[in-house]
This record gives sequence, structure tokens and C-alpha cells, in this order.
Amino acid sequence: MFSQDDHRWMSRALELARRGVYTTAPNPCVGCVLVRDGEVVGEGYHQRAGEPHAEVYALRAAGEKARGATAYVTLEPCSHHGRTPPCANALIEAGVARVVAAMVDPNPQVGGRGLRLLSEAGIETAHGLLAAEAEALNPGFFKRMRTGFPRVTLKLGASLDGRTAMASGESQWITSPEARRDVQRLRARHDAVLSTATTVLADDASLTVRWDELPEGVKAAYPRERLRQPKRIVIDSKNRLTPAQSLFAREGEVWLARHTAQGQWPASVNELLVPRLGEGLDLVSLFMLLAKQNINSVLVEAGASLAGALISAGLVDELVLYQAPILMGDAGRGLCHLPGLEKLARAPKLELSDVRRVGPDIRITAKVV
Amino acid sequence: MFSQDDHRWMSRALELARRGVYTTAPNPCVGCVLVRDGEVVGEGYHQRAGEPHAEVYALRAAGEKARGATAYVTLEPCSHHGRTPPCANALIEAGVARVVAAMVDPNPQVGGRGLRLLSEAGIETAHGLLAAEAEALNPGFFKRMRTGFPRVTLKLGASLDGRTAMASGESQWITSPEARRDVQRLRARHDAVLSTATTVLADDASLTVRWDELPEGVKAAYPRERLRQPKRIVIDSKNRLTPAQSLFAREGEVWLARHTAQGQWPASVNELLVPRLGEGLDLVSLFMLLAKQNINSVLVEAGASLAGALISAGLVDELVLYQAPILMGDAGRGLCHLPGLEKLARAPKLELSDVRRVGPDIRITAKVV
Repeated sequence: MFSQDDHRWMSRALELARRGVYTTAPNPCVGCVLVRDGEVVGEGYHQRAGEPHAEVYALRAAGEKARGATAYVTLEPCSHHGRTPPCANALIEAGVARVVAAMVDPNPQVGGRGLRLLSEAGIETAHGLLAAEAEALNPGFFKRMRTGFPRVTLKLGASLDGRTAMASGESQWITSPEARRDVQRLRARHDAVLSTATTVLADDASLTVRWDELPEGVKAAYPRERLRQPKRIVIDSKNRLTPAQSLFAREGEVWLARHTAQGQWPASVNELLVPRLGEGLDLVSLFMLLAKQNINSVLVEAGASLAGALISAGLVDELVLYQAPILMGDAGRGLCHLPGLEKLARAPKLELSDVRRVGPDIRITAKVV
Repeated sequence: MFSQDDHRWMSRALELARRGVYTTAPNPCVGCVLVRDGEVVGEGYHQRAGEPHAEVYALRAAGEKARGATAYVTLEPCSHHGRTPPCANALIEAGVARVVAAMVDPNPQVGGRGLRLLSEAGIETAHGLLAAEAEALNPGFFKRMRTGFPRVTLKLGASLDGRTAMASGESQWITSPEARRDVQRLRARHDAVLSTATTVLADDASLTVRWDELPEGVKAAYPRERLRQPKRIVIDSKNRLTPAQSLFAREGEVWLARHTAQGQWPASVNELLVPRLGEGLDLVSLFMLLAKQNINSVLVEAGASLAGALISAGLVDELVLYQAPILMGDAGRGLCHLPGLEKLARAPKLELSDVRRVGPDIRITAKVV
């Protein structure tokens, strides 16, 4: 059904889409290539929410040459009037002859409508080419659309023997500068970074992306002037945070997840009201609420209690564990609090997706299965 | 000083030496290549203690062609009458013209004597070619010769969060069959495997090498009929073991490290008497005693207490940690008991030498620094 050329041009569209990986949130990364007579006549990718979609850039670049061309798009062209006019209409008006989409739109309310519009206008359509690759570009977007939950990555840091701090609490700089730079990259790739008031108060953490601290490869692909700060979400069920924390002095939004609103906050701060569950806050409700606020992906940076609670609740998709080559001993603080767990058969299982060295440390990436 | 050809032939000698890695204990692996007029006229490697040295095999293969040849040997030819006559004399009698050794014998009592004998017989000698590679082949032998202690590898297995068992003690098969096969390979490479009575009683562990369970690559390089069982050393300071444990029914020697001798044992069992230190046994004395018994390398397979005590005493050279992709939670049993440790600055530091996936698990190899 798809030719070698089709594969080649869709690969190019995926390559273009990837350029938006740090900036498109809450939108997905999308790339588009227009090809006529075996030659690229226009290409583009979505850069930032509120700015044109990939197809628009490609059509602009092609001008009159779009007539009769094939459009390769990594996601079905949109059919709705959002912040930009529907791309399906733009493709029809430009007179393209064929549209190949890697995937149908995962939103059940609009999925297939773009391709139908094109088809009804007499344009040849196809989809499903390099679909797995296209999905891998936007795992959070697809999970949110299909399940109503954001994709959750749990970041943890520990010694080789699984300790995050000495018994006294001493813990600063267990992992290396290289590992910390890698965490900056993770933050930059996520729509939101989530932590707890305990962590923020203990470390006076700001949870921002600091462009200067990104790895060199990321800096090269992600110019400073496009820096996007992920939303910072802090679970503060006892209303302990005040505007004095340095978190609030940094650029970007902070959302406080609380049972009740309290305090005078600057415009960049929102209070998200979340129901109680036991002694804390209902995490399932919180994440559904985040998905409703268009958060596709959440990076959790927190302690052993939240880590364990999220894993036990089945809310974590991926674990990223940084291990420092050090032994802290059995008296040190543990990595993951799983209070109800007694049987080995019920212990949370993971599947390694990547294991590598980051500076002097190890980074383990694993799916929760 | 050394030509490209010298490098080439010494590399070949190292390749031959490596073939003895599972079988030469307590002797080092040594390879020898005899070259005349740019052609190999004989080669050999040491296979098993009590059998001929590498040079003898090479000289036998060369016969008359040894006359005028250059001998490349990965270790200085011996000059003493041991279980075999001195190789230096054999090389002189065969009329070789030149001898190149990768390293001088590390035994301070005999180091340099072999080369001097050759030199005095009018043979050109040189040493130091690919010395680091030659040393890496026999790290235990060299450490014992230089320090009077065996090289110690500590093998540990844990979950990703550094737990070896659930709070209840439940722990069987945390790591995969692939990881267990890899441990068989480790055992096969060491002169001795050391454990504790606690571990032996808990798991009815036999601590043997089971040829069938070795990885395929090892089986190919290590025929079943040459299987060498490492000495099995069990710390049993409370004299808890009895001849009934299945450990004693398996082929190979068992050495019981105890304060006092007790019990009737089969001929394959020795009691090593080791002084007390605090509530246990003086580990430094134990390891010096093992070195005196020609043990070059020890693989330790034990629990968190012995692991921590050995690391704290500075007795461990290398850690091999198998991590299963599972989380066992903070109530699980820890990996390494380090009772006196309070300050992060004093936590034992390691340096990664290898990180890789073994089946579904991770294997981390690190030097204690």
C-alpha cells in the first residue's frame, strides 16, 4: 500500500516534527512534507501552540507548487476551527492530490473527520504509515486523548543501594552535574513538573528549566528565545506554601494542588482544588484534573511517599532512575514507600527500556508494566 | 624499542593465555608464541596447575625450529624448580635468540631472575610490552603477589530500589535465569567462592559451578571435562554447619572459617582457624590466610552484613550488582549494612567499569575507590 518513497517522505516529516519536541505543549509535535514529481516543494512543523500548524508552513513554502502534490503529515490534518483555521480546508484549497497521515487524530470526537473532509473533496487519502514512530513522538498527547490521564514519568535519584539520603537527611548532590543536566532535559520535554510542598520546603526547589544547564545537544536544538517553562504543580494539601518561597519568584506558572484555597497569590499562581482521600489528596482526581487542563505529560520529582503512592495507584507510566556510584547503607532513606506490600508476587514490575551511563552515574529508564 | 611485529605476536600470546582463564588457578594465565623469520614455529598456553607451562608447549611444538627464534611470553619465564623444571633453562637449551616478556614476575623473591638467567646465557631480553593487558588477565594473582591479599569481588542482587528480600524474608528468584547463569560464569572465573553459614543454611546453597548452567559462550571456551570447582569458603564462626548440609555432598573442597575446630568431616573439608574480632571473625586475618593458601581471587556471595563489613574494612576490589526491574519498597531488606556510617562524605565510593543488561536485569560492575 505504501511505496518506498512514501516511507522516505514520512520519515522526513517525522524528523521535522521532532524539532518541536520542547515547544509545542500542550499541542502534539507534527511535521509535514509536500512532494511533487519526486521533489520536496514545501515542508514545515508545528512550533508552538497558537502558531500555525505544520501543514500551513509547508503550504506557504510550496505556494503554487502545492497543486497536485502529495502531503505527508505525521498526524491527521485538523478539521476544526481552533486558534487556527482547519488544515484540511487549507490542503483542499491548495489543490493537493493526495494526503498520507501517519496516524488518525486520537481524539474520539474528531478522529477521522479531517481525512473524510479531504476524501469528500476528491483527494486521495491514506493513513497508518510509520504510525508507531509518530505515536512515540507524542506519548503524552495520545495517552491523554485516549484515557483522560496525562502520561506520568517518575524521576528518582539514589545511591547504588537504593538510598536517597543518609539517616540524618543529608542528601545534597548525590548525583553528578551531568545527571542534573539530564534532569533539566527531562523537565524541558514535559508539559508539567510535579512535586510536593515537603520537597519544595526542604530544598527551596524552583522546579524550572534553566536553559544554561541543559545538555549541549539540547541547547543546539532548542534556542534560548523559545524556552518554554513547564507548569509547576505542587501538592500542598496542608496549605504550607507561602508567596515567600523562591519557587514563586521564577518565571512560569505554579499550580498549587490543595483541598481549600488560601492566601493572596500573584497572577502566575493557580490553586487547583482536589478532593481529600485518606490523609492526603486524591491523586487520581488530581491527574484527571490535570488532563482536563490540557497537561499531556507530567514529570514527578518527589520523595519516597509520593513515589510509592503514585506507583501503587497505577498512575506512573515510566520510571527514570539516576543511580550514583556510592553506597549509603541500610540506615539511609529508601527510594519508594510501598506500605501495603507484603508479597513479592505483588511487587511492582518494570520493563527496562534504556540503561546508560550519564557522566559517572547510571540512568535507568523503565516502563511500569 | 618494540616493533609492530612484536606487538602483533605479543597480542597473539595474550589471546592464547586467555584460554586458561577458567582452569589455571592458583597459577596465572600465561601464553607463549615462538616466531622465526616472521613465522610462528610454536605456541602454547598454561592450562592447569601441575601441567606444563606455556613455554614448554610452545617449545615442544617448535622442536628444532626454536633455535634462533624469538619467544613472546605474557609473563617472565620462571627460574625455579617447582612442579615443572624452570622455563628459563628450557628456552636456553632450545637455543632461542630473544625473549620478550609482557611483565616481570610480580613475586618480589623471584621477579627479574628468569630474564637475568636468559641474559647471562647470551639471549637478548626485553619486557614491558602490552603489560597492562597482561596484568588485566590475572588481576588476582598480581594483587596477591604484591599485597598478600586476594582480589575480592562482591556479588550482590537486588531490586531497583536496592532491596534483597521482602520484610518477611521472601526473596527467591528476584533476578532472572540469565543473571543466574552469569553468576555461574563469575564463580567459574574465581579461585574461591565465599559465603556465610547464615546464607548456606537459609538457601541450602551449594556454591558450586554447574557446567550445564554456564552461558553458552563460556561452555564453548571451557570444555566440561576441564571443569574446575572453586574452593568454597564458608564463614561459620558459631560452628553451625554439620556434614548434613548439601554443600558437603557436592564435588570440590569446602573450607570452614571458624574460631575453633569441631566435628568429623570428610576429606574434602578443611577447618581454617581464624581469630575473633568483636562478635565475629577477623576478616583481615581470614583474607591474609586465604592468600597464604594461594587463593588469588574470591567471589563473595553473602548478605548485607558481610557485604557491609567487607566494604568497611576496605577488603573489596570490585562490586558486581545484579538489579531486577522490580520495586520492593522501603520495608524490604537492604543491600548493604554500614552501621558506623553517618556522613555522606564518608560513604563508600565506586567507579563504574561496566553497565549492561543481562536478560531482563541490569548488571553493574564497579571498582571500590
